Amino acid sequence: MKDTLKSIVDKIPGAKGAILMGFDGIAVEQYDGGSGADIESIATEFSFRFVELLKASKALDLGALTDITIKAERGTLLVRCLSDDFFTIVLLGDSGSFGKGRWVLKTAAPDLLASL
Amino acid sequence: MKDTLKSIVDKIPGAKGAILMGFDGIAVEQYDGGSGADIESIATEFSFRFVELLKASKALDLGALTDITIKAERGTLLVRCLSDDFFTIVLLGDSGSFGKGRWVLKTAAPDLLASL
Repeated sequence: MKDTLKSIVDKIPGAKGAILMGFDGIAVEQYDGGSGADIESIATEFSFRFVELLKASKALDLGALTDITIKAERGTLLVRCLSDDFFTIVLLGDSGSFGKGRWVLKTAAPDLLASL
Repeated sequence: MKDTLKSIVDKIPGAKGAILMGFDGIAVEQYDGGSGADIESIATEFSFRFVELLKASKALDLGALTDITIKAERGTLLVRCLSDDFFTIVLLGDSGSFGKGRWVLKTAAPDLLASL
């Protein structure tokens, strides 16, 4: 699982780290590539907010939520929901690799899910 | 303002509607292009969840949040934060026009902000 997270970070220019976490805010595995980014704190802080987005999506009959992206001044989060219980976040330093990052994450999702 | 929202929807293949709303959940203006999508309910349901994302972003020193995208099975939301008080959502039927949609919304944001 760590290898898959490392591979995701290595393939995306500007990626600062990746984490696999439960929607309960408990990290399963992470890789920061030496960037020093505190991706676990970021993921924990957002995890219960993501649960709220999932609830809203189901309540509105939009169906299961598969991806969330959040772009802020000093970082972009690419989030992929792996199952009802787990998600992966990739943290980008800027949004330059947004499209490629989404594609890499989507491609890697089956591997991550299989490793759970 | 309605013209700008209409122009956004017209320019994005598969767009079902656009809305400008306050983070208090009150709609300012909307355009559904005859799709019948209840974009106001969707935006209202998500508005206070977005406020939570904004708070998390600031708490984590990621800075002000500029864009959120939410992809679900039966719809994709492109969200652009216009100011501390207002945001715009474009609802797509699928995620095929994701990239173009983000670009159109970004380009139109100054017009929407100026019309407030």
